Amino acid sequence: MGELIFVGLGLGGVDDLSARTVRALKECDQVFGEFYTSKLIDSTPDDLEKVIGKSIVRLKRREVEEEETVIEAAKMGKVAFVTAGDTMAATTHVDLKIRAMEEGIQTTVLYGVSIFTACASALGLQPYKFGRAVTIPFPEPGYTPLSPFENIYENWSRGLHTLVLLDIREEEGRYMTANQAVKWLIDAEKAKGLGMITESTIICAAARVGSRTEKVSAGYPSKMLDEDMGPPLHAVVVPGKLHFVEAYALVKFAGAPEEIADDQNL
Amino acid sequence: MGELIFVGLGLGGVDDLSARTVRALKECDQVFGEFYTSKLIDSTPDDLEKVIGKSIVRLKRREVEEEETVIEAAKMGKVAFVTAGDTMAATTHVDLKIRAMEEGIQTTVLYGVSIFTACASALGLQPYKFGRAVTIPFPEPGYTPLSPFENIYENWSRGLHTLVLLDIREEEGRYMTANQAVKWLIDAEKAKGLGMITESTIICAAARVGSRTEKVSAGYPSKMLDEDMGPPLHAVVVPGKLHFVEAYALVKFAGAPEEIADDQNL
Repeated sequence: MGELIFVGLGLGGVDDLSARTVRALKECDQVFGEFYTSKLIDSTPDDLEKVIGKSIVRLKRREVEEEETVIEAAKMGKVAFVTAGDTMAATTHVDLKIRAMEEGIQTTVLYGVSIFTACASALGLQPYKFGRAVTIPFPEPGYTPLSPFENIYENWSRGLHTLVLLDIREEEGRYMTANQAVKWLIDAEKAKGLGMITESTIICAAARVGSRTEKVSAGYPSKMLDEDMGPPLHAVVVPGKLHFVEAYALVKFAGAPEEIADDQNL
Repeated sequence: MGELIFVGLGLGGVDDLSARTVRALKECDQVFGEFYTSKLIDSTPDDLEKVIGKSIVRLKRREVEEEETVIEAAKMGKVAFVTAGDTMAATTHVDLKIRAMEEGIQTTVLYGVSIFTACASALGLQPYKFGRAVTIPFPEPGYTPLSPFENIYENWSRGLHTLVLLDIREEEGRYMTANQAVKWLIDAEKAKGLGMITESTIICAAARVGSRTEKVSAGYPSKMLDEDMGPPLHAVVVPGKLHFVEAYALVKFAGAPEEIADDQNL
């Protein structure tokens, strides 16, 4: 019977892959890649192909979610399913693992560095103090869901930080920017009137976390609306109550205004 | 001026290190290791020394938190500070980075795979659906803080999962087990009477996540009290409301009872 290895490639490039991962990929009969929910920053799938010495079949969403492409291949031999970040962050990938196990295919997960923790680390924010994460979608005509804003507010009102992931439309080459996300937050505040996003609210942005060109920035909305974070991928954090070390970290790591680390503001 | 590189070693062993990490460590003049808040499962610090070709200075808590050992070394050359998991998960390590920057030392973070996301992945639970994480401390005579239980309840009442990290007393060689954590949860429920931990509550345990001997298990408290998870490190998850793919995943990956995936229970 076959084998299916789920490989999280992490966030950087091919030299951020572990020896174990590279060896596993070299041993596989076939490697499938899913690059529509995330992507590597420092390398392309072509670079990865050179390192592992074989071609990677790029999967379309339909092939992962509806078809048996990967499962059928894994019945016949040793197959890898690779994604940027950590492979198990998407429900559809968990579902793929369940389906494989139901077919009697042996499965293994090689974890990758994930934006869920690396973004906190880049900003110096404590992972313990994050509430649930949210994703902001690109606005559609006539459809602006505000539930992400409500979830951020729920975290914030309990003193917790929120990791805000931004919509990716890989097929269209569209990646939501931190500036767009800040605009979305300001507009949602106008619509909901919860008093969370004001002129004196600190918003954090992180770009290309885990790559050589990583950039983090933090400041008031007026600054963050125009802050040039460079190419994608971007993420945003709306902090809750800052511990003084966190406040200092935002000043030192991300250029936040020094007054946020004043005692009376903590 | 010097350089200080924060290296997250991840959760497995030396062959889970990236080429970039190994190269950086080989280039360093000195490598400091902090192994009292976490540790690698598949390898020892001695194994790591062999791979990088130099000795690792094992730091005591005092040396990280109060003394300038690392900072003074980093003023003089290229220095690494290595930990299992992700280096920035501890406030004291963020503080170390701040202090280094204040001394004009160049800092870099190489992210490692962290239990904060890998534990969710191992169980097939969605990272988006986790509220804040908690840590359960070993009980001290006359001191049993129940705030972790209250935080789990706050997540649970919102339908969110909680990652429960378990106390490590590395100096004493004591690592809290999943069984002890389940007992703690049952006792806390008796003390608080919130109706969260009942005979029909699913509790998840994960041992040595990211290692070759990883084991996950999920089930009712009666099972989890005695489930043999093997050697440390252990972690526990108290799930909130399960999506049906998550419920199936707990059945397939972790041996949870099949009835939790019945439609009427979701």
